[in-house]
Amino acid sequence: MKDNTIIDTFLHPKSVAVIGASKNPMKGGYRILNNLIANEFKGKIYPVNPNSSGEIFGLEFKKTIMDIEDDVDLAIFYVPNRIIPEILGDCVEKKVKGAIIEASGFEEIGVDGLELTNQIVKITDNFLKIRIVGPNCMGLTTIDGSSDSENKGGFFSSFLVFNEYKRGNIAIISQSGMLNGGYFTHLVQKYPGLGFRYSATIGNKMDISEIEFLEYFLKDETVNVIAIYLESFKNPRKFIELCREAKKYPKKTIILVKGGLTKQGQKATITHTAAISENKDLTEALIKQSGIIKANSFFELFEYARTFSMIYNSNKKLPENGRLSIIVGSGGAGTILADLTVKYGFELPVLSKKSYNILEEIFPIWMPPNNFALVDIWPAMEKAITTNSNPNDVMRSAFNAVLSEPKIEGLINFMFCSRQFRALSSVDVLIDTVKNYTKPVFFFLIGENKELKYITKKLSENNIPSFSNLESVVKNFRVLLDEAHNKSKN
Amino acid sequence: MKDNTIIDTFLHPKSVAVIGASKNPMKGGYRILNNLIANEFKGKIYPVNPNSSGEIFGLEFKKTIMDIEDDVDLAIFYVPNRIIPEILGDCVEKKVKGAIIEASGFEEIGVDGLELTNQIVKITDNFLKIRIVGPNCMGLTTIDGSSDSENKGGFFSSFLVFNEYKRGNIAIISQSGMLNGGYFTHLVQKYPGLGFRYSATIGNKMDISEIEFLEYFLKDETVNVIAIYLESFKNPRKFIELCREAKKYPKKTIILVKGGLTKQGQKATITHTAAISENKDLTEALIKQSGIIKANSFFELFEYARTFSMIYNSNKKLPENGRLSIIVGSGGAGTILADLTVKYGFELPVLSKKSYNILEEIFPIWMPPNNFALVDIWPAMEKAITTNSNPNDVMRSAFNAVLSEPKIEGLINFMFCSRQFRALSSVDVLIDTVKNYTKPVFFFLIGENKELKYITKKLSENNIPSFSNLESVVKNFRVLLDEAHNKSKN
Repeated sequence: MKDNTIIDTFLHPKSVAVIGASKNPMKGGYRILNNLIANEFKGKIYPVNPNSSGEIFGLEFKKTIMDIEDDVDLAIFYVPNRIIPEILGDCVEKKVKGAIIEASGFEEIGVDGLELTNQIVKITDNFLKIRIVGPNCMGLTTIDGSSDSENKGGFFSSFLVFNEYKRGNIAIISQSGMLNGGYFTHLVQKYPGLGFRYSATIGNKMDISEIEFLEYFLKDETVNVIAIYLESFKNPRKFIELCREAKKYPKKTIILVKGGLTKQGQKATITHTAAISENKDLTEALIKQSGIIKANSFFELFEYARTFSMIYNSNKKLPENGRLSIIVGSGGAGTILADLTVKYGFELPVLSKKSYNILEEIFPIWMPPNNFALVDIWPAMEKAITTNSNPNDVMRSAFNAVLSEPKIEGLINFMFCSRQFRALSSVDVLIDTVKNYTKPVFFFLIGENKELKYITKKLSENNIPSFSNLESVVKNFRVLLDEAHNKSKN
Repeated sequence: MKDNTIIDTFLHPKSVAVIGASKNPMKGGYRILNNLIANEFKGKIYPVNPNSSGEIFGLEFKKTIMDIEDDVDLAIFYVPNRIIPEILGDCVEKKVKGAIIEASGFEEIGVDGLELTNQIVKITDNFLKIRIVGPNCMGLTTIDGSSDSENKGGFFSSFLVFNEYKRGNIAIISQSGMLNGGYFTHLVQKYPGLGFRYSATIGNKMDISEIEFLEYFLKDETVNVIAIYLESFKNPRKFIELCREAKKYPKKTIILVKGGLTKQGQKATITHTAAISENKDLTEALIKQSGIIKANSFFELFEYARTFSMIYNSNKKLPENGRLSIIVGSGGAGTILADLTVKYGFELPVLSKKSYNILEEIFPIWMPPNNFALVDIWPAMEKAITTNSNPNDVMRSAFNAVLSEPKIEGLINFMFCSRQFRALSSVDVLIDTVKNYTKPVFFFLIGENKELKYITKKLSENNIPSFSNLESVVKNFRVLLDEAHNKSKN
């Protein structure tokens, strides 16, 4: 009975009961209901609360789950820990397939919590009679359509307000509820183009864990990037096995950030999700065996996820040999980038005669281009301005010179964002040029806030990653190279 | 004759000639003039151009510098490299004290450029007759008053538009012109509270180098933080000596990012500023001997500069033993932070009975606080909400509990920024609490864009650094600890 179709039920339920539904907007039970309604969940919804009567959002309150006449796929619990076992008993009797338990107060609080857990194990007959996600989580999200689209919809069970999202190719598995709550909001506003397909928070993972979701996301063709935050591994052997299986898929990348790598972090996980966390050495060995991408923080996790999401969306080829090119309008930025490419294992190769000639033509005689793949474009721009040529042609030529070079696998382009400079360097021209190649191109952007936002948006709509930190640009290129190596080891 | 008063003349000139002044807004010679006028430079300004006549901004064009009747402190050159030696000859005759040469095309372009340099050395009698900043730079900036204030003013010689800035305690020394141009604009818009006193770009440093500016900034009481980008050291021994002298000043910190650490980077510096760059090992040894803070990128350079700027502005005490506390509203963020504090050499100490008791009171009985300095505040907030207490009192108590603990030297506070949550957690209450302590407090902020900006602004106005990347928070705390150690070694 413990097969994978249960995850399909958890992520695409046809009918859900909200246990602890409330008319009080300050309560989580209100917000879960509101999230389902406002985001146009297409299944049936049953508000359940023995202390409420009448209707909410046009739906009639039920006293208990037993009062619902139809079948119920899922019960979402937003009630205090103490009363959960009894209601779960009702769910078992009603043959509800799954329960999402968001309350905390189980193993992580010690003996009293453990007693509650034991009651649940007994009532569910070791989770044979009903499957459980949680406790101590922020529920699950499935995004079928973007929040600003006509066909919005999906499944939304976070107890925080959830109203802004874009459908995309990223799936989250997390032992931190924040990734289906405040941090999710943060991400969608920080990276307006970034699209998600699922966010699954698993909390204490009393029953269902990262394993079942990972298995499901591997097979789900709408998912390219799986971003994971774990405090402990439920089944390390199986986790490694699944990660290795991911290499078979050309467009599937797994990124992991692991909490509790140090004694101090382990003390934190015990009171957070009751996780007995694997230390740094064990985790690094496991990551190496799994052949997945490691992130050091939530920031890196989602910066990398964004990069892979865009690379897959735009069908770019992962670099394999680490030969890069750089185009800059600042010698200082060029120098720092050149140093950073060495730090992260890249080479700026010597240019072929053909590429060099293209560049030579756009550069002034007194300041010829470098003979290797670092192009400081400023003298060429100045030449264009003083000779009344179109500076956009200069930029296009420079892009073509390096990107057409067979040995070069990608480009980092520095762009200064200034409203004044739009005529000098049009982002549209550059986007059009990038489209002619399967090589990844990253932008490093600095400049005026407003123009920076405008250019970031344009790039993001065309799946071109941009950054405002030189080290981030190079690091994000590095994970592409790592992933190519991971996949080739298969 | 080569004394330090010349730097005073370069940064606070009484009269300047703009060589290559132009009526054409597309030309740098126009923009330099415009920057001086628009930013209310209080000295005399003389536009010089043999091909122009009449007036600009109400100032009469002079054909040559010899036509100016009064004395001239500085000549700012925005003319092509080839004609510079001749005009410099005029300046020498006119007894101009200093010249800022912004044009490129000297040693960095090879033999032809070297010939120009030799001519200049001869004409200036080895810089005895006139001192030179540059060539190949973006000039100097002195900020006497913020751009939005009534008493704005200073000295502005960048050839890029310069119109937004705040006066503060940071001084820049840079071999990249960008730090007095596009990147400067980027910084002031990215960190609206960040204030600068000077930005000195030194380019190829044919004559004046980092040494003279460093010496000046050490003695200038308006400067607390000196942010430096170098591609080579003009005089390593003297540089180390000056950096060591900085330790004598309780409120003076030097941060360095060095370009050209690798072969690839060194190839870049040669065609940028003609610098023969010291490699990684030499540079690291020099930084160690100097006892200064090392940054890996422009991003880190200014993130650290901002941190020190705020710490000095608010008279906070640098941590010495690395005992920190953390308050989070997310167990996941708490776990990652706990790991990161170990990575960067911090300890989250066990709480005293007194501090623990304060926390115990605000926490629910079923979920007591940790006994060490990682406070997951959420259960306490929930208790406040369900018992109708003021959640702001909870936050204030938590801050006081950890900050009043003698062994704890600072606090990292996680804050979720949501318009809805203002009543739950008021940033004003937290700011007031922080003011009662000399211990540095950093905020980690995530949430809704708009609210995040609102809170960032409030914190920044009160000199409280905030970050949206957990690793950055801890890294920035680490440099405070490093600086305390640097200073104690004196």
